[in-house]
Amino acid sequence: MAMVCVSDFEAYAKKYLPKIAWDYFAAGADDCTTRDENILAYKRIRFRPRMLRDVSVMDIRTKILGSEISFPVGIAPTGFHQLAWPDGEKSTARAARAMGTCYIASTYSTCTLEEISAAAPGGLRWFQLYIHRNRAVSQQLVQRAEALGFQGLVLTADLPYTGKRRDDVRNGFRLPPHMKLKNLEGAFEGDDCSEYGLPPNSLDPSVTWNDIYWLRSLTRLPIIIKGILTREDAELAVKHGVQGIIVSNHGGRQLDEGPATIDALVEVVEAVQGRVEVYVDGGIRKGSDVLKALALGAKCVFIGRPALWGLAYKGEEGLQNVLRILQDEFRLSMALAGCASVSEIGPHLVQPSKL
Amino acid sequence: MAMVCVSDFEAYAKKYLPKIAWDYFAAGADDCTTRDENILAYKRIRFRPRMLRDVSVMDIRTKILGSEISFPVGIAPTGFHQLAWPDGEKSTARAARAMGTCYIASTYSTCTLEEISAAAPGGLRWFQLYIHRNRAVSQQLVQRAEALGFQGLVLTADLPYTGKRRDDVRNGFRLPPHMKLKNLEGAFEGDDCSEYGLPPNSLDPSVTWNDIYWLRSLTRLPIIIKGILTREDAELAVKHGVQGIIVSNHGGRQLDEGPATIDALVEVVEAVQGRVEVYVDGGIRKGSDVLKALALGAKCVFIGRPALWGLAYKGEEGLQNVLRILQDEFRLSMALAGCASVSEIGPHLVQPSKL
Amino acid sequence: MAMVCVSDFEAYAKKYLPKIAWDYFAAGADDCTTRDENILAYKRIRFRPRMLRDVSVMDIRTKILGSEISFPVGIAPTGFHQLAWPDGEKSTARAARAMGTCYIASTYSTCTLEEISAAAPGGLRWFQLYIHRNRAVSQQLVQRAEALGFQGLVLTADLPYTGKRRDDVRNGFRLPPHMKLKNLEGAFEGDDCSEYGLPPNSLDPSVTWNDIYWLRSLTRLPIIIKGILTREDAELAVKHGVQGIIVSNHGGRQLDEGPATIDALVEVVEAVQGRVEVYVDGGIRKGSDVLKALALGAKCVFIGRPALWGLAYKGEEGLQNVLRILQDEFRLSMALAGCASVSEIGPHLVQPSKL
Amino acid sequence: MAMVCVSDFEAYAKKYLPKIAWDYFAAGADDCTTRDENILAYKRIRFRPRMLRDVSVMDIRTKILGSEISFPVGIAPTGFHQLAWPDGEKSTARAARAMGTCYIASTYSTCTLEEISAAAPGGLRWFQLYIHRNRAVSQQLVQRAEALGFQGLVLTADLPYTGKRRDDVRNGFRLPPHMKLKNLEGAFEGDDCSEYGLPPNSLDPSVTWNDIYWLRSLTRLPIIIKGILTREDAELAVKHGVQGIIVSNHGGRQLDEGPATIDALVEVVEAVQGRVEVYVDGGIRKGSDVLKALALGAKCVFIGRPALWGLAYKGEEGLQNVLRILQDEFRLSMALAGCASVSEIGPHLVQPSKL
Repeated sequence: MAMVCVSDFEAYAKKYLPKIAWDYFAAGADDCTTRDENILAYKRIRFRPRMLRDVSVMDIRTKILGSEISFPVGIAPTGFHQLAWPDGEKSTARAARAMGTCYIASTYSTCTLEEISAAAPGGLRWFQLYIHRNRAVSQQLVQRAEALGFQGLVLTADLPYTGKRRDDVRNGFRLPPHMKLKNLEGAFEGDDCSEYGLPPNSLDPSVTWNDIYWLRSLTRLPIIIKGILTREDAELAVKHGVQGIIVSNHGGRQLDEGPATIDALVEVVEAVQGRVEVYVDGGIRKGSDVLKALALGAKCVFIGRPALWGLAYKGEEGLQNVLRILQDEFRLSMALAGCASVSEIGPHLVQPSKL
Repeated sequence: MAMVCVSDFEAYAKKYLPKIAWDYFAAGADDCTTRDENILAYKRIRFRPRMLRDVSVMDIRTKILGSEISFPVGIAPTGFHQLAWPDGEKSTARAARAMGTCYIASTYSTCTLEEISAAAPGGLRWFQLYIHRNRAVSQQLVQRAEALGFQGLVLTADLPYTGKRRDDVRNGFRLPPHMKLKNLEGAFEGDDCSEYGLPPNSLDPSVTWNDIYWLRSLTRLPIIIKGILTREDAELAVKHGVQGIIVSNHGGRQLDEGPATIDALVEVVEAVQGRVEVYVDGGIRKGSDVLKALALGAKCVFIGRPALWGLAYKGEEGLQNVLRILQDEFRLSMALAGCASVSEIGPHLVQPSKL
Repeated sequence: MAMVCVSDFEAYAKKYLPKIAWDYFAAGADDCTTRDENILAYKRIRFRPRMLRDVSVMDIRTKILGSEISFPVGIAPTGFHQLAWPDGEKSTARAARAMGTCYIASTYSTCTLEEISAAAPGGLRWFQLYIHRNRAVSQQLVQRAEALGFQGLVLTADLPYTGKRRDDVRNGFRLPPHMKLKNLEGAFEGDDCSEYGLPPNSLDPSVTWNDIYWLRSLTRLPIIIKGILTREDAELAVKHGVQGIIVSNHGGRQLDEGPATIDALVEVVEAVQGRVEVYVDGGIRKGSDVLKALALGAKCVFIGRPALWGLAYKGEEGLQNVLRILQDEFRLSMALAGCASVSEIGPHLVQPSKL
Repeated sequence: MAMVCVSDFEAYAKKYLPKIAWDYFAAGADDCTTRDENILAYKRIRFRPRMLRDVSVMDIRTKILGSEISFPVGIAPTGFHQLAWPDGEKSTARAARAMGTCYIASTYSTCTLEEISAAAPGGLRWFQLYIHRNRAVSQQLVQRAEALGFQGLVLTADLPYTGKRRDDVRNGFRLPPHMKLKNLEGAFEGDDCSEYGLPPNSLDPSVTWNDIYWLRSLTRLPIIIKGILTREDAELAVKHGVQGIIVSNHGGRQLDEGPATIDALVEVVEAVQGRVEVYVDGGIRKGSDVLKALALGAKCVFIGRPALWGLAYKGEEGLQNVLRILQDEFRLSMALAGCASVSEIGPHLVQPSKL
């Protein structure tokens, strides 16, 4: 089977992953409306392509928080990569470095931050953080990440509680016994680990904007807040001094029937007015989706499930395949829309949906 | 089979209820457009969820007409509960009390009001009334309900005649001989009971707003009018002194191709301007639907078919299961939208459909 | 099989009619978009039903051009009723009279006007006219109709040429040899009758508005023009002195992808401003469709295919069944919307589609 | 099987062409969204047909750049006609001449321009040009075409690189060995011809608007630019002195999720304000589509895939069949909309989609 586009990897993963793992990665909250809307919303946006512009030399590089990446697609934080490939997050780190882009490692990795760092020294990596009720756990993670050379701290804001993913409930989803949330080993010893290998209710639902100041006190890393969907929260994020915002609905896994991320992006970009960088994840399946996101103001996009499908296909190599496809498609879309470099991309390239 | 969400109960009921009972509960008028629109209209509404608000302590209680309920979901009046479960409305009453919410008992119950009261003493109950041509019948029912401790009188306004439900006509729907409209036993003796166990045309199609004054003369109970769909009628309801309005289209069983109730709710709330409480029924299938209804101004929602599916599954226990699922989903949706108490819910949480 | 709604008759006709006859009656032009839009457009309109209005005494009668009919549904002109039932248009005439409504007999009837008149003396009938290249043929038809007591002359304006109905082309549709266009027998003797039993190109495509004056010179009957879809043509119709307009797209059989008739009705009614009566045909399948059409300004609707399905089911009796169903559904819809008489129906009852 | 409408030819071609050829002709870029939108966008446009206008004498002729054609449908440039029929472009040329319309021969023909000219002397033909990195190749083609009597030069502007057509990648699409890009034989000798029989990257992606001046210096032929989709580029085209614009998205084969051509036409026509002729291709399947395109300002439409389906059916004769069907349908649509000649067609005939 030729692997021609990202959905080929999706079909492969659906066929070859254990059902419980596929279901976990695929899951959306409730009716999966938002998960699916993330994709449909891209399809409603039309390009306004420009012709006869010299596109013989294409430059698709960009920078995020000052670091150059080879093209504006990074790896969003997702958990449990060993469910997709035995080497887990180590493969992810290697593929991201090989492709010259950024990997946001999840708190819920099945490899330690140390293993991830060692697997791909010099790669650009950010660390994704959940704040636990036991704040010492989170503090230690942040400081480990900074010490290991992670260059950004991504605070997930949309998971005070875990969304209701029906298939996981039906499957009684648990990590297989030979996998561990390795970054948290020892942190919750003696507890009964019922939810995803963690004690129930280990995350802190009392986190507020003031905790940004607490994080700031722990680290010199730039703070990126992930999960913002409204102009009001974008304004608060800027006001509390974050360096970046990832417009995200957690892949449609938290509150169902919130907006598609590409729709929310427009509102957030408008509110932020360039004061901080804005990124987006959710629903990216083609290079042209990346072009739309950049046209609407994103500095870079991050892919979640497509990265997992790549891992499921062939580990590091499979994820490189996925990234390369998106890179080639993005470059081609840019050229066909009349842009030779990322700096030429702008809102004139798209007409938003009338719906 | 795990019962994870309300539609699991629907699937169960469809499989295990006698076809004639399933069809009766499922029926909508004509093409069932409005019945289905009630659900689809919720799906068109998008949340605007807010992040990083302290949701560690959740308060989902509310009050309706001064009585506290454990969460803003009550049981709408529906007929013939023995079609779903042998104990009929007695089970319904017990489940509602156990879950700390309000049960609106129907005139067309297969248990007497006395049995319902005795089954769950102290539970919060309202009584739903149809006005019969023989006004003495209705008067006696109202006064029995008040004497038994029912705390509200719900007048159904949208059934001067019964809607055309094709499947019921095809099935020749009748109550099985061992079931009776027990509250009306004796009221129509000697008549030929052809329609749902009642004499044909027993309801009074000449009822007008002035009959609210007649009802008021019969009872000190607050009067709630059910079936309002326009601002004009909402205004009339307030003017005639009702205490509450249930925005309802009778589950799509009366006039087909009227508005979805969640769409009509917006118009009614705007007209009423807080002068009386407004509730809504129809199409509620998830906790997030409840959150949307409250965001758009409902004080509480009522569930019809989902309650019957719960009864069909396991009587009192099954209905408790359904209510518990809605309660858990509602609490989670609130938290994920950034609300810690019902008082924080407001129109800022939703963006209405552009359609 | 219980015949509960109009679509039951459609299903019956599809099953029992010869394929060539079913296809002929069902045919729309080209992709059948407009044929189907006629129905879909009704579904996009929502009622605004009013409650608690005395609907104990219902009056559903109306008048068209001064003649009372029992309810505002007449029989639109369609050809070749013997394809549906052996007695053909005689059965149609009898059913219309029995139900107290108007029957518009087609030029292309398989019974003579004399037979139709004799079948149901005293019934209210209009005569539908095509203008032939041989004007004497048309003149003679008009004068025969007037002499026989037909009370209106309906000029079809939308068929300068026959629309392209793919299935008829594929089937090589022809009338069976034992059926004749009896009103035209002798008129085209000696010609080769290749199209629907007529010589090819027998209709006159040079007809213009001035021919209304020619028709006026032939008869004292009121002239109703059928096939108007725009405000411009509605204005011209009034200016040329017609007494009525039937908003029609010929059941979607002529120009495909014109507007649904219920959408065009709004525009025509607005242009006409009550100067002449406006009727509509196309897409009526339920009593509530009739209510919508009247709410949007139609004085009466006419049914085409549903009448043929009734004939196909049981001739006169079957058509009466169809009319009775529409009558009962219309009365019920009116009551559930809060109207006790046709005079209470108005635009306040509907909210037009946002699409 | 009766060949009644254009989609009958599509069905035939799908059944009888080799899969690799069908896939190549059918292919759209990426998800084929734009390919399909080209068709769907026509369906969203509604006519406003006018009645009772004398349509007894129909005149469907028009002129493009001064040359009369029998009706406003020409043959768009498409490659590799021998994949559809052994005689390839010679059959196409003969059919176009027989039907009195214009054929735009592609650079990527499987017959030489000389063979095409000889096959149908005197026919109206334009030549479609890609600009190669080796400019001498393109210059020689232009001058050959002019010498052979081609009357227009169509510059394709939307293919700096080839779009990603997944099925072609999966099939490893190549011309069969016995077919050649005959117009380019010798031009790239010694090169490895991997892409469609050409050396990879033979087209010049550095072409800009200034190259219009270069083309102008090579030939006295009028220049038509193909692939314009925005008002900005339409303005540039006029400014750089082209004689015509073909609004086109290359059949949805280049940038996916650009606008449907009929939607882009409106914008381009508005910008051009009659200064040059505007044509459109993509999605034409019925005569009424042609009428819509003319109503929205196109001087003529061009068909791509339908021509190939005609060839696949029966070569020259099959393509004539397709053209004749479109001609008959166009004439009928005009008449049913109330237009007797092309000059009466205008924007008053359509209501654009509300979507």
